[in-house]
Amino acid sequence: MLLEKIENPNDIKKIDKNDYPLLAEEIRQFLIEKISVTGGHLGSNLGAVELTMALHLSLNLPEDKLIWDVGHQSYTHKLLTGRKDGFDVLRQYHGMSGFPKRKESDYDAFDTGHSSTSISAGLGLVQARDIRQEKYTVVSVIGDGSLTGGMAYEALNNAAKLETNFIVILNDNKMSISENVGGVSKYLNNIRTTTGYLDLKEGIYNALSGTKGGDSMVKKIRRAKSSFKQLVIPGMFFEDMGITYLGPVDGHDIGALTKVMREAKRVKGCVMVHVLTQKGKGYGPAERHPARFHGAEPFDIETGIPSHPRTTANYTDIFSTVMCKLGQRDERIVAITAAMPDGTGLKRFHNMYPDRFFDVGIAEEHAVTFAAGLAAGGLKPIVAVYSSFLQRAYDQILHDVCIQNLPVVFAIDRAGLVGSDGETHQGIFDLTYLSGVPNMHVMAPKNKWELSDMLKFAVAFDGPIALRYPRGNAYAGLREYRAPIELGKAEWIYRESEIALFAVGSMVKTAESVRDQLKAAGHQVSLVNARFVKPIDEEAVLEAAGSHSLLVTMEENVASGGYGEKVLDCLYRSGIAQSTCHCIRVTLPDAYVEHGNVELLKKEIGVDADSIAARIFHELDETGYRADHVG
Amino acid sequence: MLLEKIENPNDIKKIDKNDYPLLAEEIRQFLIEKISVTGGHLGSNLGAVELTMALHLSLNLPEDKLIWDVGHQSYTHKLLTGRKDGFDVLRQYHGMSGFPKRKESDYDAFDTGHSSTSISAGLGLVQARDIRQEKYTVVSVIGDGSLTGGMAYEALNNAAKLETNFIVILNDNKMSISENVGGVSKYLNNIRTTTGYLDLKEGIYNALSGTKGGDSMVKKIRRAKSSFKQLVIPGMFFEDMGITYLGPVDGHDIGALTKVMREAKRVKGCVMVHVLTQKGKGYGPAERHPARFHGAEPFDIETGIPSHPRTTANYTDIFSTVMCKLGQRDERIVAITAAMPDGTGLKRFHNMYPDRFFDVGIAEEHAVTFAAGLAAGGLKPIVAVYSSFLQRAYDQILHDVCIQNLPVVFAIDRAGLVGSDGETHQGIFDLTYLSGVPNMHVMAPKNKWELSDMLKFAVAFDGPIALRYPRGNAYAGLREYRAPIELGKAEWIYRESEIALFAVGSMVKTAESVRDQLKAAGHQVSLVNARFVKPIDEEAVLEAAGSHSLLVTMEENVASGGYGEKVLDCLYRSGIAQSTCHCIRVTLPDAYVEHGNVELLKKEIGVDADSIAARIFHELDETGYRADHVG
Repeated sequence: MLLEKIENPNDIKKIDKNDYPLLAEEIRQFLIEKISVTGGHLGSNLGAVELTMALHLSLNLPEDKLIWDVGHQSYTHKLLTGRKDGFDVLRQYHGMSGFPKRKESDYDAFDTGHSSTSISAGLGLVQARDIRQEKYTVVSVIGDGSLTGGMAYEALNNAAKLETNFIVILNDNKMSISENVGGVSKYLNNIRTTTGYLDLKEGIYNALSGTKGGDSMVKKIRRAKSSFKQLVIPGMFFEDMGITYLGPVDGHDIGALTKVMREAKRVKGCVMVHVLTQKGKGYGPAERHPARFHGAEPFDIETGIPSHPRTTANYTDIFSTVMCKLGQRDERIVAITAAMPDGTGLKRFHNMYPDRFFDVGIAEEHAVTFAAGLAAGGLKPIVAVYSSFLQRAYDQILHDVCIQNLPVVFAIDRAGLVGSDGETHQGIFDLTYLSGVPNMHVMAPKNKWELSDMLKFAVAFDGPIALRYPRGNAYAGLREYRAPIELGKAEWIYRESEIALFAVGSMVKTAESVRDQLKAAGHQVSLVNARFVKPIDEEAVLEAAGSHSLLVTMEENVASGGYGEKVLDCLYRSGIAQSTCHCIRVTLPDAYVEHGNVELLKKEIGVDADSIAARIFHELDETGYRADHVG
Repeated sequence: MLLEKIENPNDIKKIDKNDYPLLAEEIRQFLIEKISVTGGHLGSNLGAVELTMALHLSLNLPEDKLIWDVGHQSYTHKLLTGRKDGFDVLRQYHGMSGFPKRKESDYDAFDTGHSSTSISAGLGLVQARDIRQEKYTVVSVIGDGSLTGGMAYEALNNAAKLETNFIVILNDNKMSISENVGGVSKYLNNIRTTTGYLDLKEGIYNALSGTKGGDSMVKKIRRAKSSFKQLVIPGMFFEDMGITYLGPVDGHDIGALTKVMREAKRVKGCVMVHVLTQKGKGYGPAERHPARFHGAEPFDIETGIPSHPRTTANYTDIFSTVMCKLGQRDERIVAITAAMPDGTGLKRFHNMYPDRFFDVGIAEEHAVTFAAGLAAGGLKPIVAVYSSFLQRAYDQILHDVCIQNLPVVFAIDRAGLVGSDGETHQGIFDLTYLSGVPNMHVMAPKNKWELSDMLKFAVAFDGPIALRYPRGNAYAGLREYRAPIELGKAEWIYRESEIALFAVGSMVKTAESVRDQLKAAGHQVSLVNARFVKPIDEEAVLEAAGSHSLLVTMEENVASGGYGEKVLDCLYRSGIAQSTCHCIRVTLPDAYVEHGNVELLKKEIGVDADSIAARIFHELDETGYRADHVG
């Protein structure tokens, strides 16, 4: 086993170059075996094996800085930098992250998670290097999917001015998570098919280089604003911006990759190395089903079938089904995704109503303003998006949708803790950033039927409105509680006295367990499903305050700007004394929450049923509020 | 006067074409005269006179949809659509907006204000049109500056797939607000100098068109992935994406513009019309000083000199001066602006330390992640940005700066109400969106000296930190109160009893007036300068609660997630009864605030000193809290 020789960073440099293909094969086997057990990002990692090896061979790490856009393709990088054992606890609580983390390794130069940030971050490191007169190489590796994100282009626009070396590797597999879309993809495709030019170019350059005056001729060709240049250089757009384009290069040929890296390091300025790779390379099921093996659950290696097939519908499934029904009922309904047709559950809608489905690529900002345009044009757009990715479009929600009060529906998946993807992907800020926006309305369903009801309500609503729901199994309890959705109205589930639990969305289920524990201890406990976070149901809050001595709010969101603050504000404005009705606000802490099993994370930060019940019992003991009010 | 004939929309179509130049001249005179009195955006409007005329001549408004990117160049459009009288009350309270507003006119197809949104919105309208099987033309007019914003590129990437008509006018004046920067600018410049190709292309097309098989030949040329195409078509990048490129065209030649519009309307798919204009065209001072006449205060027409020259320094001036000093003291300090070297006050820093200054173009997302990269590389980046524009980079703050706890300083100008630019530009959400982000720290200075002290504190601080300060004159009162800045510590200015005013930043000055009124009525009033909004000074709040019966928080921010909520949360957690110490929270309403004089706006929404004092008096009367506690 060659892999046994790879214990420490840079050990790969000791491997005989004839053994590179074998090592690549062993790395692939290792990744497939490990990920089949833990789950994780497979396809992108299998595609980047040789590229990562070539980069480690070409660079002097950790002095040189290597930035992985999005970062889920950094597994081979982790494997080559002494973190082999981490794969047994990949994405598990206190285990190895699935993304680069500076706090995990000196070899991780910059944390990533969201798309399209690597060129900006890399350019920052380059400028810092130059100002501090240091010497190291900076490499940002970005996928063609990430290149549909606008900030990558903002960064390229700036990198083009550089006069010192900065290497951008365009890892082009023709895919975002699903198939890549749009004009840039078309542009890159044109380049892919123009290898003839590359040969021509190399031929001309080779013929000129070394000859008398030949080098300056090469320079002149590069500089020329001439048709000649257009003839010989693919990647003209990049070249015309001021970026040197090298490629396309076979991303599975380590020799070709190390050669082009040598060239790239010699360029004075920003150089884009266009590398062609195949997502899922070397594992049949992943090659055939790239979207399914993007982020995979544990699977059977032989068949590629999930080891623990889902038996319960998740919220995404419910959303998917309801969207298809609504699409049939109302022709004005259109659906928008930012490169997540599978993840958001819009694939079926796409199949049924292809003309009313828009995959805009990894481009959340555009997605939201585009939706605003669709609404201004008389349609009913539903933007389906993950909570943490919608952060990208905060200004577009505020500036393009809500100022004009346009009826755009935001179907926000992965709201609350998401688990194994960790800090960058936890959807724990949406209640805050959405609630602060005028004209916005925010809902969260308690169970699968309510998701359906809320989506229908949202589609019929004439203004901006969001519904947020968590990752994972859709709660199928409380089916009998299905009062019609009314704007700003909460739902009383149990109406008793003493303690009132006001729970937002996913926390309703948790609140049921909390209630069970409180009931078992002899308390009278009401349970209110908040339904609306903006506007909150002040009437319900005040009614509860009049008949209960303790009110507990629960939400999977940070405290600042969240539901609990609004309830407290309502109580306070109404002059309800703390001694009459006290309010405990259960929220997430003012901190990033790392990766790990969601149930574990909840326990750790005190938002699981046991912790909440314990906190309530403690409060009751401390304050004696109970004694005053028990009927 | 031809302009007298332009009373209603489409009246321009009755003007004889020979009179177009004269009408353009009259419009320029009109704009110069009006804006010299009211202030407003001059340069961009003078540059777009003929373009706007040509669009109105070519389109069937309001059925056709015309979207102005950013929107400050829509004055001629307003003039041509029956809003001539509006110019006397331009940007004044209840007067005409300086931006397109759907609620102001049916001829304004989509509200704009921030940059780079028009292609997304236009594409939305196009898709809505097609789905609803309607027939109208959609035109988005975008500047070359706005094209440095990533979302414009995200939108182009999508527009490239269109099979029905969508016209994007690239209004290229080589400027953002200041001179345009970066690779795209260079790319466009290359095109500008290749008019020879255009002639060649036209020649070939003209020769082919109409001949037997000629039209299909033209199509073939367009489709060809061939060097021939590269020879004859500038704007190759756009063409290769799938966008038809027409141009460049003289943007001051109405004949050429209407002709190219006829061509553009015939294209099946997205067409980009590249129009070359001059910012400030026809008014010498504006041609010579484009940045100064971008957004102008009232000025003397003869000389171009401001009618009421500033005699008092504003916060931007102070920031500018301190930055220069700090830059000398510490070589790690670098400054970043997103196309606002003048507006943010970084121009002097740029002149003094050109290698440590970065204008990234209109690209807030990139600016912030780039800053994170600079910080990761060992430097001390200061991002100077307007509050409402930083909304664009919410995710980058949260995801790229704060997760890694990188020492990036955000110098947030135009925080709070900004006045005449209105809804899109009010900086009234930053306390909310910043406070919710873990690891972030947020300050606001009470006066000019404190801005200086806070900036120095921020630069020395090892983590993400923001200071926000308002537009307009820097407050020069309270000079004697200059206790050193300490993390999370407020500053007691007057320490009395009964009523404690806790004011954030600009509201300290207001609080002084409130205090004067309360004192005049015989009350004992403390005044605390909050200084930190995150973390708040809980000790100061609790100390005040122990010795006062009424605590009043004041901030120029919406309530949700703001300072008042944090103070209330602190009081509540500490078990301070409302009957012991009541808390009034003065905030901005949960609503967009329109344009107008800031003092008027404050009065209108109840955050001026008189309104706040009246509210406090009312509260005192209502509750009798005073009686309980007067010493």
